Amino acid sequence: MNLAVEPPFRGLTRIRLYLAYDGSYFSGWAYQPNLRTVQGEVQKAITTALHLTQPLEVIVAGRTDAGVHARGQVIHCDVPELSPDFDFQKFVYSLNGILDADVRVHSAGVAPAGFDARFSAIARRYSYSVMDGVTDPLLRSCAITHWRELDSEAMNLASASLLGLHDFASFCKPNDYGSTIRTLQEFTWKREGLLLRATLQADAFCHSMVRSLVGCVIAIGDGRKPIEFARSVLERRERMADVVTMPSAGLTLEEVLYPEDGELLRRQEMTRAKRDISEVEG
Amino acid sequence: MNLAVEPPFRGLTRIRLYLAYDGSYFSGWAYQPNLRTVQGEVQKAITTALHLTQPLEVIVAGRTDAGVHARGQVIHCDVPELSPDFDFQKFVYSLNGILDADVRVHSAGVAPAGFDARFSAIARRYSYSVMDGVTDPLLRSCAITHWRELDSEAMNLASASLLGLHDFASFCKPNDYGSTIRTLQEFTWKREGLLLRATLQADAFCHSMVRSLVGCVIAIGDGRKPIEFARSVLERRERMADVVTMPSAGLTLEEVLYPEDGELLRRQEMTRAKRDISEVEG
Repeated sequence: MNLAVEPPFRGLTRIRLYLAYDGSYFSGWAYQPNLRTVQGEVQKAITTALHLTQPLEVIVAGRTDAGVHARGQVIHCDVPELSPDFDFQKFVYSLNGILDADVRVHSAGVAPAGFDARFSAIARRYSYSVMDGVTDPLLRSCAITHWRELDSEAMNLASASLLGLHDFASFCKPNDYGSTIRTLQEFTWKREGLLLRATLQADAFCHSMVRSLVGCVIAIGDGRKPIEFARSVLERRERMADVVTMPSAGLTLEEVLYPEDGELLRRQEMTRAKRDISEVEG
Repeated sequence: MNLAVEPPFRGLTRIRLYLAYDGSYFSGWAYQPNLRTVQGEVQKAITTALHLTQPLEVIVAGRTDAGVHARGQVIHCDVPELSPDFDFQKFVYSLNGILDADVRVHSAGVAPAGFDARFSAIARRYSYSVMDGVTDPLLRSCAITHWRELDSEAMNLASASLLGLHDFASFCKPNDYGSTIRTLQEFTWKREGLLLRATLQADAFCHSMVRSLVGCVIAIGDGRKPIEFARSVLERRERMADVVTMPSAGLTLEEVLYPEDGELLRRQEMTRAKRDISEVEG
């Protein structure tokens, strides 16, 4: 067995939780003393609901930046052994009673063997929402307004040209210790009512990668750049000022994908083996 | 010509504007000194944008209560005569620059002859949104959470039993001076993602009527009342505590319907003739 894989130690139960949050009033996911972060709030809520006396650390599938939202966030944490008849439904109810309305726990349960929220994941799916025509003020916390009309067809062509296994250095914040090689599995644009919404899926994203990819393609959508611009940015493998990192408000982590339960441990070991994966996503 | 119809006086231009707003942080539509109201904000913005020196009053199609939203609100107001080459696009841009992000002007132009935002309208369409399963915190400002699962089929049957021309006294706040007779033209429920969304259309709604109709049918949807309850409430023509007025956050004015331009004045006269129509809607 790979020693790098941290088991839920004897006397502990590993639990898995699914969360959604409106990131508008959080200083991002990651705990920071004296700031309101999703991790901080969730850790506090679990500690209170389980009457824990020790500090607790939760591990997240997709660390999100300040202002970024989530509909399908996944976390795990190891808590003092729970009795087999522990009532998870009541636990969820109690967590949602403790948490503010901008973060909701959708479900909780014992994690399957070998599960690690971060290292077992095989892919993350994000959406990015833009209003380029009429602005609906009810959507302003999760969609940005773009002042020029966007050509979704050109944007789909440009986005498709970025799919596959590449070095996405041109779209990532410089990262001394990590690789910027990723597999972009999906990048499409679709009109949904007043929204033009992008869907992006990759094994993992580097820091600011989703928002830079979107910024690059939006410059094509409003006519400032030709369709070929996207591919040329990818190929130069250098981050430059002509690619804008879009505002966080439009970005939502929609789903984290995992392999079948039997594959969770193997996947975790594989990911840990190439631990150079960057630390912050979105 | 019917004297009751107020013309845009000589030297004035009647303009029509389409608005959307997130009602969360407004004390409703109607102007109140020292409170933040949509009417107050919009009047101030128009006054500023047009450099008016006189106070201005805008007339609204659907007065909304505190916390109620709008996507298709319509207003008119009479302003000092505008030159024929007045740039309405620039005017809209300027209004949106003055207004906070929770209210947006979608378009503005000279009103067609005979137009009155309130009295020319032939129907109002509202939506009411409920999350009865998973709660999306990103939708919490425009959809309420209901703790029991709702049976949309039973709700559609109950809602259909209320359609038509009736005295809706059981669903209206008592109104000494007004009639509570309305024609309910549409009342349907549809699942859209995580939302169960009602659409209600009537010639006009009395105060709190939409939210009471929804409260009545939700009691059927979660099994507290049988389908026949809706019709029996309608027929007793008396407002009672077993019908809950739902929270305003779920309610949105979606659209105001007007007749063809040639019919605007006749419609205005007709509505004014039965001016007993109640003053506050939603």
